[in-house]
Amino acid sequence: MEASTTAVMPHPLAQLSREEFVKARDIVVRLHGPGTSLFFRSIYLQEPKRADLVPFLELEHGGALSETTKRPPRQALVEYDLITASGNRYTHAVVDVVSGDVVLNRSAQQGLQPYFTVGEMSPLQEICVESDLFKEAMADFVLPEGFEVTIDPWPHGGPDRTSDGDGDMPRYMQGLVFAMDTSKGNPDSNHYAYPIPIIPIIDVTTSQIIRVDRLPRGGAGDDSHGFEQRDTPRELFKDNKAAEYVPELIEGPIRTDLKPIDIVQPEGASFTIQPDGLVEWQKWRFRLGFTPREGAVLNDVCYDNRSILYRLSYSEVTVPYGDPRPPFHRKHAFDFGDGGMGRAANSLELGCDCLGAVHYFDSYLAAADGSPTPAKSVICLHEQDNGILWKHTNFRTGRAVVARSRELVVQFIVTLANYDYVFAYKLDLAGGITVETRATGIVSVVGIEKDKRSANGTVVSPGVLAQNHQHIFAVRIDPAIDSYASRDTQVVVEESLGTNMHPVSNPTGTHFEMKRQTVHKATWIDTKPQTNRALKLEHATKTNAISGRNVGYRLVPPASQMLLAHERSAAFARARFAQHQLWVTGYRDGELWAAGEFTNQSRAEKGGVEDMVKRGDWFTDGGRVRNGSLPGDADGRDAAQQSGIARRSSPVVWAVFGFTHFPRVEDWPVMPVEIQQLQLRPVDFFTANPALDVPLTKNTASVLLSCCGNADTDATPSVQDNPASHWQGSGPSIDTPMEGR
Amino acid sequence: MEASTTAVMPHPLAQLSREEFVKARDIVVRLHGPGTSLFFRSIYLQEPKRADLVPFLELEHGGALSETTKRPPRQALVEYDLITASGNRYTHAVVDVVSGDVVLNRSAQQGLQPYFTVGEMSPLQEICVESDLFKEAMADFVLPEGFEVTIDPWPHGGPDRTSDGDGDMPRYMQGLVFAMDTSKGNPDSNHYAYPIPIIPIIDVTTSQIIRVDRLPRGGAGDDSHGFEQRDTPRELFKDNKAAEYVPELIEGPIRTDLKPIDIVQPEGASFTIQPDGLVEWQKWRFRLGFTPREGAVLNDVCYDNRSILYRLSYSEVTVPYGDPRPPFHRKHAFDFGDGGMGRAANSLELGCDCLGAVHYFDSYLAAADGSPTPAKSVICLHEQDNGILWKHTNFRTGRAVVARSRELVVQFIVTLANYDYVFAYKLDLAGGITVETRATGIVSVVGIEKDKRSANGTVVSPGVLAQNHQHIFAVRIDPAIDSYASRDTQVVVEESLGTNMHPVSNPTGTHFEMKRQTVHKATWIDTKPQTNRALKLEHATKTNAISGRNVGYRLVPPASQMLLAHERSAAFARARFAQHQLWVTGYRDGELWAAGEFTNQSRAEKGGVEDMVKRGDWFTDGGRVRNGSLPGDADGRDAAQQSGIARRSSPVVWAVFGFTHFPRVEDWPVMPVEIQQLQLRPVDFFTANPALDVPLTKNTASVLLSCCGNADTDATPSVQDNPASHWQGSGPSIDTPMEGR
Repeated sequence: MEASTTAVMPHPLAQLSREEFVKARDIVVRLHGPGTSLFFRSIYLQEPKRADLVPFLELEHGGALSETTKRPPRQALVEYDLITASGNRYTHAVVDVVSGDVVLNRSAQQGLQPYFTVGEMSPLQEICVESDLFKEAMADFVLPEGFEVTIDPWPHGGPDRTSDGDGDMPRYMQGLVFAMDTSKGNPDSNHYAYPIPIIPIIDVTTSQIIRVDRLPRGGAGDDSHGFEQRDTPRELFKDNKAAEYVPELIEGPIRTDLKPIDIVQPEGASFTIQPDGLVEWQKWRFRLGFTPREGAVLNDVCYDNRSILYRLSYSEVTVPYGDPRPPFHRKHAFDFGDGGMGRAANSLELGCDCLGAVHYFDSYLAAADGSPTPAKSVICLHEQDNGILWKHTNFRTGRAVVARSRELVVQFIVTLANYDYVFAYKLDLAGGITVETRATGIVSVVGIEKDKRSANGTVVSPGVLAQNHQHIFAVRIDPAIDSYASRDTQVVVEESLGTNMHPVSNPTGTHFEMKRQTVHKATWIDTKPQTNRALKLEHATKTNAISGRNVGYRLVPPASQMLLAHERSAAFARARFAQHQLWVTGYRDGELWAAGEFTNQSRAEKGGVEDMVKRGDWFTDGGRVRNGSLPGDADGRDAAQQSGIARRSSPVVWAVFGFTHFPRVEDWPVMPVEIQQLQLRPVDFFTANPALDVPLTKNTASVLLSCCGNADTDATPSVQDNPASHWQGSGPSIDTPMEGR
Repeated sequence: MEASTTAVMPHPLAQLSREEFVKARDIVVRLHGPGTSLFFRSIYLQEPKRADLVPFLELEHGGALSETTKRPPRQALVEYDLITASGNRYTHAVVDVVSGDVVLNRSAQQGLQPYFTVGEMSPLQEICVESDLFKEAMADFVLPEGFEVTIDPWPHGGPDRTSDGDGDMPRYMQGLVFAMDTSKGNPDSNHYAYPIPIIPIIDVTTSQIIRVDRLPRGGAGDDSHGFEQRDTPRELFKDNKAAEYVPELIEGPIRTDLKPIDIVQPEGASFTIQPDGLVEWQKWRFRLGFTPREGAVLNDVCYDNRSILYRLSYSEVTVPYGDPRPPFHRKHAFDFGDGGMGRAANSLELGCDCLGAVHYFDSYLAAADGSPTPAKSVICLHEQDNGILWKHTNFRTGRAVVARSRELVVQFIVTLANYDYVFAYKLDLAGGITVETRATGIVSVVGIEKDKRSANGTVVSPGVLAQNHQHIFAVRIDPAIDSYASRDTQVVVEESLGTNMHPVSNPTGTHFEMKRQTVHKATWIDTKPQTNRALKLEHATKTNAISGRNVGYRLVPPASQMLLAHERSAAFARARFAQHQLWVTGYRDGELWAAGEFTNQSRAEKGGVEDMVKRGDWFTDGGRVRNGSLPGDADGRDAAQQSGIARRSSPVVWAVFGFTHFPRVEDWPVMPVEIQQLQLRPVDFFTANPALDVPLTKNTASVLLSCCGNADTDATPSVQDNPASHWQGSGPSIDTPMEGR
């Protein structure tokens, strides 16, 4: 972490050191002078412009760096609120941490709401419980003895039915209200088992509760979708049941027959990581970054010193709820844009989150006064075995050759009130990259009356309705296929199609072919498993010496269901990126957000992937794509191209995937992981299986179990070795002759 | 294995003991008497009829078995050829190994070809090299010094262009011809790098080569699709390169920086396996079987003594090649039906195929004389860690609770000449079942002239074209959802759909719902990721006490591309199961084959899933499905229903999935695994997360790596612990207050 203590300049992609962080903060404080109130949100590395960084990377990978190499400016991005009499101005400053210069200082347009910091969310509970409106709402209820109100901060979601038209909305937050059974004397007793049917809305700027929404608690067949008014206070939780998950509170025994699996690496790990974030493992090499919004980021991903990706990052996840009863339509989070995954990252723990030989990566986050707060162990790196990577048995000799699959896993885990995500980037020995999401934690629930059911969710516990929702992720893939030059990477849509019968070209009807269409301008593309549709990211001119085809990587996105919200809904307007599984846009520095930078309380996606496509400022010089052949081309985006402002930059690919979650009872109280994977696989990038040189050593730590029991090192199988038996294959030497024929 | 040495009767699902195997063979030999020539193909357990077995299982799971319990007959299925003057008659005998009775003895219709045994395939090479036709063909070529012909047996595939109409075809086999460089003195030198452009066709019954096809070797733009005739012998392999994969022959160094990962289970495995195949692990319980055609089979899969599946098995894989140039259209294998995965199963090796504490399962296969040949270590069972299973962090207290995912893996691996498959059934702690296929081995190649390319494949090495092909698997799922009774299991198609805006029911457009359609008669169903379509297997009347919904399991099939062969092609006719991803049929005893029993040299699929749907003898009493709502209903299959022969049996579900393989250079010489997974997940089957009681012990074998290097147990992270830092969440106690606001 302490790059400044070494003599060398930090790598342009190295995280800010503590000293740089403090200097960046001080520059901004000085900029505004004494007497100005500042509220700091984030301070982190401003990654160099691509045009500045690429020459450096080319020299670096060519082994030609020297002390005189021109380096990109070393800059920090400082996000803060300038607090003025007329309100807060959300401000971005880019400062040069070497020269001290303020390179850029700009405030967001009015009406755009930045993300919530922890500091903004924390006071919610106190503000609520002291508010008369809240007390009045709570007077409708009687809680059991020992139960205390516990409130989770949530983003407000989209525009409210009662909001004031198109004018600026105040900065709102909503609270999801539960009660905790304090009689257990355990602060980790699960309050989500006891939802209270109100949602307070707070004006974050004034710290006032402006309204308390009453929630519907009915079920299927109810005439009213709203809250039932009653004259006497309602006794809550008469039928609810505890939903404990911490081991000391779980009802019933913990199973005792699950014996340990230890991952032991007697010689240590096979990867190295340098203080500046350089990770090297099995011919892979990348720069590990961490940002407050994205969490872990992989920069400059190379294999055998050949570039593959300029940058790989998670961009967004939208989580719209499908319960149509107001105000549940405002349960619609953007977990990257509304809060930030880096800010929500867990401090990971050895032996729990990863097994084996584990390296933890630290970072800093900004406190409200701009001071660096250590963010300890927010990323873990470890290797794992993933079964068989390749195997072949020669049936003539019986000789089996088998290589194990090994992955380097870069993992971070975030908590967003009730919910938790496990994010991982996995690199493998065969040149593949897998981006994996695991959704876990506690599903979001509301109250439901006794014995009622609802199609809007699942009763996961008496009185508790887990509402239907979607999780739709966006991953940003910034390719640099065997070249950092913008013009070199091209994107091709590939499909596999059968062909017509033809006396010469397809006489027996078995023929099929790959149809390839180069993407020539920004567009969207839907997955289509029926035609095996996938994106190929390839070098436009460099070919594989063996196959003669362009070197490339194939992107295999999961064919997920996209956003189900109605196209005239606010939810749809806010999450337009979630319409299509693939987007191809033109690169712009700092443009990282599939749903736009400002998702919090947004009315519509601004500056997201759809806008990037529409602006039409990227196309290739390969000419227009064939009319109508790519569905995203229908919008007539030729204006920019014709006006000459368009340019050929790198294409950026956004992969959108996720799942529609009708909760199961099995998801309660904490849900087993729901796993989604996105795969990038080399296609003619290498001249042979890149894992051919993996050592084929037999693992000597494995032990044989004999029948009927537990640990046993009896190495005698129950059937004796018989060299003349069948199972090795079909060679003449190992078979019984065909007697009697 | 030696069940007969114990006093108790074998379990009805236990494999045949050696004694039972021998007795079954002897019964058949006696049946035909001396002087008759028999060629044995397979001898294995004839599983009891469902109607006989279910009462036994119900008693067994109710703990009510006794010595007087009526047991299903103990039977063996003996598959053999009766060799007569007029030809071989392929015969099935079912014999009672207790009474010695021959329960059934029937021969296949003329024209149906049984699978090839190893004994039928083995003589191919010798027959070829001694044949004049083959020698004449080889005279067209000059091989380099030290190269020797090596021939792989392949099934003939579908009807040949030159075959004699609809009459019976002789029993054919084709040979794929290569040359091995014997100068290396290593019998595992890879001959696939040297394809010779001829395919001999052998009449298996007469052991005669009947024809040698010359293969096209041209590429894109060639006018001729056929073999180029020349006057002088062609020197082969002038430009080919070795493609070695055994470590002692690989060119270049083996990497030395991959440090070992040992899976250590100091207390042994958590599962037990009994001699009769009973496996118990973490509330799971099933009977492990092994058949010559299917490999590993899971019978009577239960969790917590509640039945889930009656039987789970792989049924078929079809592998059609897409190169339209004759005779490559006959490269179209059915690897279960043409040969059999159990017969092709590898003898697995400790420390290579599975890590950790491993149990190997043995079986017997029949030699040509019917004697039992030990098939050693054909299945391995082991546990593996699969990352995080569930996690939640309480942001108020910072307390993280995390459970590891553990899987029990039942794996078998097969070799089919050049190709290898890794098949696995995985059970997990959260009640899930995953069926996984990994395709590996050596892609099938043919010769291509120097510097030519072809759209029909990929030049993976000079002179070597890996042809495009598909692998389409079928898995048979025989459900028994919380009941063995036939009437209890129902199949429902579930889809997630948005709804129209509506002032009351969907005022904000965020609503979506699950549409459910019960399958009321045999049908096919295509996957549709756009609507999140999946099959729910559920108990028709038993509901979850919490949610009130039917207890069930959800089948999530991969949305794979289906068969690309033209619908008028023989390839399509032979593999009609590969048209659709899901089939629902009515249960019949012994009906296990998606493409029918006789795939070898078939002209069309007979008795496969399409025929099962068409025969219309299964429907529920829930009445007719809504008209046209399920696409497979279009055929008007009401005749059986109206005629009264229909009955309500159990539904059987067939999941079809796979991949279209345009080979990559990276797939040479041995391809990294291509993984497909099929998932069955409990939905409201349990009353909470079934893995809630998994112990949350921290793994103490994991070690911390400090920066920049290798094994290091320095436990001091580079950033000091700071209890007031940001990363644990958003609780008021752990954040800096919002100063200045």
